[in-house]
Amino acid sequence: MAEVKITKRADDYSRWYTDVIAAAELADYAPVKGCMIIRPNGYAIWEKMQQALDGMFKETGHQNAYFPMFIPENFLQKEAKHVEGFAPEVAVVTHAGGQKLEEPLIVRPTSETIIWNTYRNWIQSYRDLPLLLNQWANVVRWEMRTRLFLRTTEFLWQEGHTAHATYEEAEEETLRMLGVYKTFAQDYMALPVIEGRKTEREKFAGADHTYSIEAMMGDGKALQAGTSHHLGQNFAKAFDVTFQSQQGTREFVFATSWGLSTRMIGALIMAHGDDNGIVIPPKLATIQLAIVPIFRKPEERARVMEVANRIAASCKSAGIGVKVDERDQHSPGWKFNDWEKRGVPLRLEIGPKDLEKNQAVLARRDSGEKSFISQDGIAQTAVTTLAAIQNGLFEKALAFREKNSQEVDDYGKFGALLDAGGFLWSHWCTSDTCEERVKNETKATVRCIPTSRRAESGKCVVCGSPSPGRVIFARAY
Amino acid sequence: MAEVKITKRADDYSRWYTDVIAAAELADYAPVKGCMIIRPNGYAIWEKMQQALDGMFKETGHQNAYFPMFIPENFLQKEAKHVEGFAPEVAVVTHAGGQKLEEPLIVRPTSETIIWNTYRNWIQSYRDLPLLLNQWANVVRWEMRTRLFLRTTEFLWQEGHTAHATYEEAEEETLRMLGVYKTFAQDYMALPVIEGRKTEREKFAGADHTYSIEAMMGDGKALQAGTSHHLGQNFAKAFDVTFQSQQGTREFVFATSWGLSTRMIGALIMAHGDDNGIVIPPKLATIQLAIVPIFRKPEERARVMEVANRIAASCKSAGIGVKVDERDQHSPGWKFNDWEKRGVPLRLEIGPKDLEKNQAVLARRDSGEKSFISQDGIAQTAVTTLAAIQNGLFEKALAFREKNSQEVDDYGKFGALLDAGGFLWSHWCTSDTCEERVKNETKATVRCIPTSRRAESGKCVVCGSPSPGRVIFARAY
Repeated sequence: MAEVKITKRADDYSRWYTDVIAAAELADYAPVKGCMIIRPNGYAIWEKMQQALDGMFKETGHQNAYFPMFIPENFLQKEAKHVEGFAPEVAVVTHAGGQKLEEPLIVRPTSETIIWNTYRNWIQSYRDLPLLLNQWANVVRWEMRTRLFLRTTEFLWQEGHTAHATYEEAEEETLRMLGVYKTFAQDYMALPVIEGRKTEREKFAGADHTYSIEAMMGDGKALQAGTSHHLGQNFAKAFDVTFQSQQGTREFVFATSWGLSTRMIGALIMAHGDDNGIVIPPKLATIQLAIVPIFRKPEERARVMEVANRIAASCKSAGIGVKVDERDQHSPGWKFNDWEKRGVPLRLEIGPKDLEKNQAVLARRDSGEKSFISQDGIAQTAVTTLAAIQNGLFEKALAFREKNSQEVDDYGKFGALLDAGGFLWSHWCTSDTCEERVKNETKATVRCIPTSRRAESGKCVVCGSPSPGRVIFARAY
Repeated sequence: MAEVKITKRADDYSRWYTDVIAAAELADYAPVKGCMIIRPNGYAIWEKMQQALDGMFKETGHQNAYFPMFIPENFLQKEAKHVEGFAPEVAVVTHAGGQKLEEPLIVRPTSETIIWNTYRNWIQSYRDLPLLLNQWANVVRWEMRTRLFLRTTEFLWQEGHTAHATYEEAEEETLRMLGVYKTFAQDYMALPVIEGRKTEREKFAGADHTYSIEAMMGDGKALQAGTSHHLGQNFAKAFDVTFQSQQGTREFVFATSWGLSTRMIGALIMAHGDDNGIVIPPKLATIQLAIVPIFRKPEERARVMEVANRIAASCKSAGIGVKVDERDQHSPGWKFNDWEKRGVPLRLEIGPKDLEKNQAVLARRDSGEKSFISQDGIAQTAVTTLAAIQNGLFEKALAFREKNSQEVDDYGKFGALLDAGGFLWSHWCTSDTCEERVKNETKATVRCIPTSRRAESGKCVVCGSPSPGRVIFARAY
């Protein structure tokens, strides 16, 4: 009865992804190439994500600020690696107010340059450090191939930019925020992630080194779900940001930056979605429980609605996001399907017969399981079940990842294994040559050098040279 | 002892405004002409504003969404009045991804065009109406003369865009959101406002008619603090958005839009600020109470800090935003001054002698009043005092506005009265000619045709022709 028919995952994963977005009304393509309209159902997920992250940023001592979207073109050129990485994909404003600008402005692809140009005025002494700021903003990167949420020309994100007196403090901050991302991914998104360090080839343009969290999607591909960069003194030197130390010397400031974007909504869809649509983890669902009243005769309507509204009120008091589906033009079956497509974690069905028996039917979105439950203590039942779903989604995703991860010591198997999907834990000699060869021959990249990898020396899966440990190779979004 | 010396309001209002922003570290000018860096202290006020407004939008049935920042240039041209109003001030992207674009993109100055182009796909039937969306976004208007918060090239705002089946429903929505703005201004910003309708000359480019709330600043000038537009069927016709009515006919959709921006931070500064800096109404203050511990000898420090922290904990439990000022490098006097500049509503001073007497000193930012209060029930005292400050700020601003408002029937007095500052309630014949003459000769505009004006016919203050009632003339920001 669905209006948008969702292609089966097994038939065509890519079309399944697009269909799920359309069916749940999460986003639309915009009239401008690669831009995205985030529809209310999609934006509600982003708001929940923002709330959770913003709270954690503040708990770790960060404040929000806002820096301009327009950056003078010459700023980008001040950091050599940074310009190399970003110049090819910027959008440029050349005219404004009816006139040609003297210097073109770029639309921020990221804000290190404008922020470090500002920090020069704000930082004088060690007393001004650490400076711990974050901003919620839109950024633009002109991408050739775009996909809703995963890669769009304009996207929404947060970018943290901090300044520190020492390398060690900056390293601590870089890892602290990686930890915040991990907590967010695991506790809110129900998404198991692997923390690790990026290779030189994959690090942020302008960073000393980059950490990321990597997640596995439902087709076995990897998705980088958040990055945290130690920028060393690169931007301080490019923008001449120094401070007077406690010892009275003049030193360059150390920097970090870290970001997480609307791409995470794509990750959420691909990690938990199924053939019926998106599955939203309870902690990120605005509507956590949809109540569908069932009746045929008009006289039944009032009786059923009264109980439905009473249950809704008690669930709201328990802190649950509830919606009673009163739409008269649709059948109960149509509504069940509709709430499934939209990924609402719990559905409660209640009809005249249930009233007699003081019961209702509770349907779980994650497992499809339906059970009769008592109307007594129904809010508590819902709270418990929501927690079970949150936990269950994580466990299921973790089991899937484990099942699709393996240690591989034979490069000859890479192609077939990558076609099947999954993470390959293999030895790597740390050379760019071998990394590049794997990429060219198999389209897989080193996702990260996992923080928690076990101490084990071996031989590079590509060239046989000594390797200090296994890294994760995978194809990625 | 202040680091930024604040010019006295009476000496130079404009410099006072700039000094207050610098002293409280609210914002900085950016390297790009007319753009603004919103510093953490300024952004914290915006976050509180967002929270309050967003809650009210959702209570009135609106959902958030996000539409792209880039708009194809030809979209702007589809609504004749709209392009006339906005074309001169747009910023234009002509190059992206290293190439010249086939069609230039404008950076949204407002989003009616891209949104109504989208609504064409989303609205088919009366069942799809009303459509009640809002977005939080940055917009760009290339202004010649800019001032921090009040008029910047890029600014942050919310823009609501709704679609309705009938003129009447759209009118209802327009007035409902004007009411939300009024409630926000009065209850959160402690800012008395006058609701009214804009003249044809002052209405939004593309609207059928516009309503606004108008506030008086500390120098007697007016500031438009929020606008709500009935767009009629103008955008539906420009973008061909029709729906099938319940009767089966095909009709154009009616529209509203309404917006409120970071300009309100400027209004807040000018409405309540004094010679010591900004005064933040308690409901918009993140730090509502600053506790300054006082001690000379090291052995006093521990005793005072213990009590300060205990008081802080009890105030936090009562829902108050508290900061204990532990900075060792500054004297208590320096700290008092610092919290005053930052506009924190309440300050608590506590020293060794206070410990003996089970007391503390509570200082109100609005009145400067200091009083000894008991440490018993101190959280409740703070809650009560914060409410009194919130209320007091409103009453003070209201009394100021009343004092500086008068009915004027002699156009010859306009110049002198406007130089002194204030609202002039005068009769106006509704002709554009008289409105234009007043603007050219006195720099005053019709701020609004007040909703609540009393029924009174009279003679136009300019030309003597019949007038249906008094309107408000004032110079404005």
